[in-house]
Amino acid sequence: MSLIRDLTEAEARRAMPMKWGGTEPGVLPAWVAEMDYALAEPITAALHDAVAAGVAGYPWFGAGGPLGKAYAGFAQRQFGQRVDPGWVLPVVDVTAGVRFAIDVLSDPAPVVMPVPAYAPQLAIGEVTGREQWPLTVHPDAERAEIDLTQLDLLLAEGARTLLLTQPHNPWGRVFSRAELEGIRDVVVRHGARVVSDEIHAPLVLPGREHVSYLDVEGTHDHAVAVVAASKAFGTPGLKCAQLVVPDDDARTRLLEAPMVRNDSWSTLGVVAAIAAYTDGDAWLADLRTRLGEQRSLLEQLLAEHLPLARMRPLEATYLAWIDLRAYGHGDPAEVALEHGRVRLAAGHDYQPGLPGHVRLNIATSPERLTEVVHRTAHALTRA
Amino acid sequence: MSLIRDLTEAEARRAMPMKWGGTEPGVLPAWVAEMDYALAEPITAALHDAVAAGVAGYPWFGAGGPLGKAYAGFAQRQFGQRVDPGWVLPVVDVTAGVRFAIDVLSDPAPVVMPVPAYAPQLAIGEVTGREQWPLTVHPDAERAEIDLTQLDLLLAEGARTLLLTQPHNPWGRVFSRAELEGIRDVVVRHGARVVSDEIHAPLVLPGREHVSYLDVEGTHDHAVAVVAASKAFGTPGLKCAQLVVPDDDARTRLLEAPMVRNDSWSTLGVVAAIAAYTDGDAWLADLRTRLGEQRSLLEQLLAEHLPLARMRPLEATYLAWIDLRAYGHGDPAEVALEHGRVRLAAGHDYQPGLPGHVRLNIATSPERLTEVVHRTAHALTRA
Repeated sequence: MSLIRDLTEAEARRAMPMKWGGTEPGVLPAWVAEMDYALAEPITAALHDAVAAGVAGYPWFGAGGPLGKAYAGFAQRQFGQRVDPGWVLPVVDVTAGVRFAIDVLSDPAPVVMPVPAYAPQLAIGEVTGREQWPLTVHPDAERAEIDLTQLDLLLAEGARTLLLTQPHNPWGRVFSRAELEGIRDVVVRHGARVVSDEIHAPLVLPGREHVSYLDVEGTHDHAVAVVAASKAFGTPGLKCAQLVVPDDDARTRLLEAPMVRNDSWSTLGVVAAIAAYTDGDAWLADLRTRLGEQRSLLEQLLAEHLPLARMRPLEATYLAWIDLRAYGHGDPAEVALEHGRVRLAAGHDYQPGLPGHVRLNIATSPERLTEVVHRTAHALTRA
Repeated sequence: MSLIRDLTEAEARRAMPMKWGGTEPGVLPAWVAEMDYALAEPITAALHDAVAAGVAGYPWFGAGGPLGKAYAGFAQRQFGQRVDPGWVLPVVDVTAGVRFAIDVLSDPAPVVMPVPAYAPQLAIGEVTGREQWPLTVHPDAERAEIDLTQLDLLLAEGARTLLLTQPHNPWGRVFSRAELEGIRDVVVRHGARVVSDEIHAPLVLPGREHVSYLDVEGTHDHAVAVVAASKAFGTPGLKCAQLVVPDDDARTRLLEAPMVRNDSWSTLGVVAAIAAYTDGDAWLADLRTRLGEQRSLLEQLLAEHLPLARMRPLEATYLAWIDLRAYGHGDPAEVALEHGRVRLAAGHDYQPGLPGHVRLNIATSPERLTEVVHRTAHALTRA
């Protein structure tokens, strides 16, 4: 029997103040990246235990420790990747970790941002005081990938950091080792840096495997990865992500940066992350199975109810990036909300100016996903 | 009977990974600002309840809401201050809130920092890309206060923001309404801004009262306060503080800033803050009584064992700022650690270059405080 338990609407509304609590009753939420499933039992147990012991003081500081050890074990088992526990530094969340790494490690020069991109990270250039140069995947491209010629050009023109999101949200892509080696070759040629946001790594769907950018030879001197248990285990509100920093000098610079740049991770977030990394494998395996099923269901539902929708293969994440331009609505998410009472994420949030796209969250029950697609189809074809 | 329960050493070591967990066994920790008391029961109950319901999703966003309402009620009851719930915005912690307010609201010009200052905030200038101009209290001054002539001069020379910490850590001062009015007059004359860090407001000790800078007439157009339940209720690891922003335009600018600048507060931190603000009054009253007793005990112990120590009246906080220059050690905290096995905070962390001072945390049991002073006296007088 699967360890994945679907939340009732009342349960979801309480557990997820943003996704459900922030959505009007009667509207089905399929927007922000949260899952309608109960937490894994080892996480709940660890949190109860910590609360009973009053574990609410400032968290552990510094690299390594129990969190580093837990992540290293997880990376070994899940990705076959060797991580030294001492490479692991806590940060409050992945986007804060990306900001921190760029602030401290990157030259004051433009950052290359593959687009469409995770919406909040579109402001990374602004908050780190750097120009941000997009590297855009054309919506008609057969495959969503990093265009190496374009990357080469941007680095030649002075960009010094590539923000790599992999697996990619919202592309739904898992990068192969060969692709990552290609990226590395271009980056190394220009002496640039990579910040690799790998928050979706545990959510690689059946049929694919995650390769960390740090697991590619010759990357340790110029790259950090930003990882977290929070996306795969449904704990984004508990606030603890990690930087993986194999380079000694880079790690020292991060550890010696003013505390104010990075001291906001939560003690209970650390507790939850350790529990997830240590005792979460069985739940995670069942989650991936469920998400694989939801993916198949989505393909089926789209074929039947939105046959003009175009979706590249969803290789990772539970976030489907769907091209609905054929239905002729500039903002299909708005149409779906108004006429279908379903809340999708608008494509233009991920790529400003892009019409006709949505990101649809499949991490719910089969019944809700069916209803989401029915309502969306009804709205787009009747409105 | 008091609601304040002293933690055993084993309990403290688990509950406080930094203060106790980060201190070698055998060494008594009296450094970082955490209290050796069990959490208030309403907080523990609310956290258990939230964990049981899996409340781990992204938190509520935006101003007001249940958190704003809870803080407004607390401010009314505790400080007789009228706060509109809609003025209250969550932030992850107070220092992040200070950074956020300066980043978004302050002109790109120097920040005035009263010194000695809360150590991590000494980097606020650096991380907000501004010069930081100290406004230093001489260690021999009878009273620790903001020198208005000096403030006037610094603002005339181009500083545009005053970081006011009040009650002040490590001064231990509560500012009177008249003092705050004097500060306001100077600030208004120059059209400058105030960021008022009021995290210690609930910790005003018997005999004094907290007046928020925002409760002084004519401050709403140029000031924000940064507040939190975490310091008074012992939950710094749960990560939720609040900005109080009465000015509509300022609030809009903060709410419309890129999420990346401010989206890292924790959902369980919100739960704990609401519980503290709503149901914490009785526990807080007992805490202040206990801290008042600890303050008396400290005065007695110093008079007996460290008669050359000089301490201004401790009006708020549980952090005693002690001048030990008469004992002739440049770094008495280091001497106390090495020869007394007690860990104090070094004065030069709060004012670079200042010799002979320590900050001593009295929020523990009478027995431990007695031992802390005994050991310190022994170390300083024998070493």
